[in-house]
Amino acid sequence: MAKNLTTRGEDYSKWYNELVIQADLAENSGVRGCMVIKPYGYAIWEKMQAELDRMFKETGHQNAYFPIFIPKSYFSKEASHVDGFAKECAVVTHYRLKNAEDGSGIIVDPDAKLEEELIVRPTSETIIWDTYRKWIQSYRDLPLLINQWANVVRWEMRTRLFLRTTEFLWQEGHTAHATKKEAIAEAEQMMNVYAEFVENYMAVPVIKGTKTESERFAGALETYCIEALMQDGKALQAGTSHFLGQNFAKAFDVKYATKEGKQEYVWATSWGVSTRLMGALVMTHSDDNGLVLPPKLAPDQVVIVPIYRGEEQLEEVSVVARELQKELRAKGLRVKFDDRDTQKPGWKFNEYELKGVPVRIAIGPKDLEKGTFEVARRDTLQKEVMDKGVVVDKIVALMDEIQDNLYNRALNYRSEHTTEVSSYDEFKEIIDTKGGFVSAHWDGTTETEERIKNETKATIRCIPIDVKQEEGSCMVTGKPSSYRVLFAKAY
Amino acid sequence: MAKNLTTRGEDYSKWYNELVIQADLAENSGVRGCMVIKPYGYAIWEKMQAELDRMFKETGHQNAYFPIFIPKSYFSKEASHVDGFAKECAVVTHYRLKNAEDGSGIIVDPDAKLEEELIVRPTSETIIWDTYRKWIQSYRDLPLLINQWANVVRWEMRTRLFLRTTEFLWQEGHTAHATKKEAIAEAEQMMNVYAEFVENYMAVPVIKGTKTESERFAGALETYCIEALMQDGKALQAGTSHFLGQNFAKAFDVKYATKEGKQEYVWATSWGVSTRLMGALVMTHSDDNGLVLPPKLAPDQVVIVPIYRGEEQLEEVSVVARELQKELRAKGLRVKFDDRDTQKPGWKFNEYELKGVPVRIAIGPKDLEKGTFEVARRDTLQKEVMDKGVVVDKIVALMDEIQDNLYNRALNYRSEHTTEVSSYDEFKEIIDTKGGFVSAHWDGTTETEERIKNETKATIRCIPIDVKQEEGSCMVTGKPSSYRVLFAKAY
Repeated sequence: MAKNLTTRGEDYSKWYNELVIQADLAENSGVRGCMVIKPYGYAIWEKMQAELDRMFKETGHQNAYFPIFIPKSYFSKEASHVDGFAKECAVVTHYRLKNAEDGSGIIVDPDAKLEEELIVRPTSETIIWDTYRKWIQSYRDLPLLINQWANVVRWEMRTRLFLRTTEFLWQEGHTAHATKKEAIAEAEQMMNVYAEFVENYMAVPVIKGTKTESERFAGALETYCIEALMQDGKALQAGTSHFLGQNFAKAFDVKYATKEGKQEYVWATSWGVSTRLMGALVMTHSDDNGLVLPPKLAPDQVVIVPIYRGEEQLEEVSVVARELQKELRAKGLRVKFDDRDTQKPGWKFNEYELKGVPVRIAIGPKDLEKGTFEVARRDTLQKEVMDKGVVVDKIVALMDEIQDNLYNRALNYRSEHTTEVSSYDEFKEIIDTKGGFVSAHWDGTTETEERIKNETKATIRCIPIDVKQEEGSCMVTGKPSSYRVLFAKAY
Repeated sequence: MAKNLTTRGEDYSKWYNELVIQADLAENSGVRGCMVIKPYGYAIWEKMQAELDRMFKETGHQNAYFPIFIPKSYFSKEASHVDGFAKECAVVTHYRLKNAEDGSGIIVDPDAKLEEELIVRPTSETIIWDTYRKWIQSYRDLPLLINQWANVVRWEMRTRLFLRTTEFLWQEGHTAHATKKEAIAEAEQMMNVYAEFVENYMAVPVIKGTKTESERFAGALETYCIEALMQDGKALQAGTSHFLGQNFAKAFDVKYATKEGKQEYVWATSWGVSTRLMGALVMTHSDDNGLVLPPKLAPDQVVIVPIYRGEEQLEEVSVVARELQKELRAKGLRVKFDDRDTQKPGWKFNEYELKGVPVRIAIGPKDLEKGTFEVARRDTLQKEVMDKGVVVDKIVALMDEIQDNLYNRALNYRSEHTTEVSSYDEFKEIIDTKGGFVSAHWDGTTETEERIKNETKATIRCIPIDVKQEEGSCMVTGKPSSYRVLFAKAY
């Protein structure tokens, strides 16, 4: 077990916080609610970015960059949006500091007050749609498929590393279409892209679905989402994709000339995932020994640790280690050889366990004699001695095995923690004890949804895309219901 | 000539502004001084980022991410730094908006005033060094080699797309070292990395040098720079790398334990390039017809335009065009086939000339008969008919030829616009008429430097790294001088 790491059983929340810091993913900064993403954490985020960016481009999107500041008045243009986003935010009111006349330091210069306050973007629909008005004239300009990688700021009262921070990194796609049908197809496509990424790269199974009205993005007609389940039985929204109808087009007067020469408002989507995914990655796979990373996103997929006494042995072991590193790299693997003499092998073993490196290979003098390697999997903590002749192929195969095992383990956990209930009492018991997703009939009203939330802290995570028609009655009001929805407590 | 594009001869500055907008690189936004980087411009920036990032990693650096906000008090900790950076900046004073009671819209909530104002980072030395105090304890933690890709904000009064904007994108490297020697070596290394990138990828020749005391970065003991020359004879600082001594380590109390157990302050560097490089790229190579892009950074290196009448011809031409596209792509080239039927070939020729695509290939019915292609180079505007059998190899070779030609053309321009002068009268005449770099003797005092700046608007761009010792006397004061420095008017 990792030194000083609280176990999941003791306190899941504390385990998470400690792990993120001890594994060098991120830490709190001197600025309230803002985190520092450390090099190891950022290396994982970069791998996520690279795959997502590739997937966005393969589906026809281009990157662009819009200003970080949004004039206050822009927010007032879309009524529901302002309530959702412009309230808890960072407001720039001045553009200059000066030395205080009493010598007490630097102060805000009262003469440098902005005519209109600027909001540090919490999301960019308003500034982007203000720009799209200039970019869109005719059907030839559509569809407009743009993505932005950016930082955004939401003034959160209670923050947690990666899961909820005042500033976070994300991507936000903003698209414009000639027809409603195309815009809906785009929003659905991006939900599917997100699901593919999260399942295939992060090894995190997700439920695809739509949000209820009260859980929708401010300004959206439909919010598509992917929902994952963490090891403490709480759900985490891993990505959202919104069909925005013509709300922003109307608010910012974005029309296009059809082939027939008519002027029509365009149809919009927006979609995003953020550094929150880092939290989902940590909480889905990691254990009491530390991080467990899926091979596809691990900065180092394999680490080789030499076991030796004295410099001569180190040199002998290093020759074999470097040869193995070379062979594995030739197969496309990311392989580190840690030959530092400032740390002992035991310390290194703990370190790479804590950091979640998928495969650790130890090589000592005995291995040299026998032509073997001691190979340890991070996911199962199992060790196996492998012969020289097969080690490379076996380790290459291990990458897929570990990736699949992590996914399947998480899928099993989710299956075991998804419960169909038929009464509100049963619902409350499951939510309070076992947790996980609870599938139940609901009467479709915001009122009942609110009541359930107030009484149990569980929310409707989504109406699954593949929901089956099933006649039933709402577990709370007894009113008729024709399908089940998924509830859970959530991050 | 491109439609509606002012020529360089008429008004260089206007030509630049129009070109950036017409070529879809960037445009002004609704937020004062902030630009929107459009997809075509961003695609070029992404290519720059990818190469720079690779070069940073190859020299041992890791990426990380630090908060966008910096508490006001952090700036006061390094005396010279505060004067340089904390004055013209965006100040966040409040964290909430609310609906005005009189229904007039949303206003800043006076109850949500921050205890300490936050500055939107103009550069990140202070927040990063506040963090490094926690990361550095012992010599084992050194060197610490970190880079950050980020947006920064400096409240500029006069802004120009890419060259000077309130918000811009950049990378900032921040490193910590055990010794002064290592830190200086790092600062020099990064100047060399920048020079390599700008010369080899942007095809822009640069002069490497150091800044005079008055032109140094606020808080630096030495600023290394690379200086390029634009087609209007003005210099542009394309990148800087700073040796910061122990200034920030002392300001933020960052010490390390040496091998012998002594506590010492660490030595620092910082270095950065920004979206300003986009401005340098445009101004160095482009002409009165539009952009001219070096093949290594062009989003599309080759564009194929079909010439046809009617759908049947289009289909015949397309078969050949797609085959050529495939063959060129197999050679690693980025090739676009523009078969849109909404635009005429002439329109497309102008469009790709404006966008600076290095090579344009036209294929018409006559070419099909003869087995030929009409190949046009963007850099020289020369056309050549190439036979099917050689076209692929010739175009692959053209990529290097064009890249080299752009570099050599810029180098020739610079050679022709670098003048050695021996008197102040001669200096003033050259600066006022021919422009370019002027190499002159200077007495080494800030006073004389200031006087020259006030009288001629020329500044000392740098003391070249490869400066020759040469006894002389200052062109202004006649005092002894032992080497020449480079002057120019600058962006």
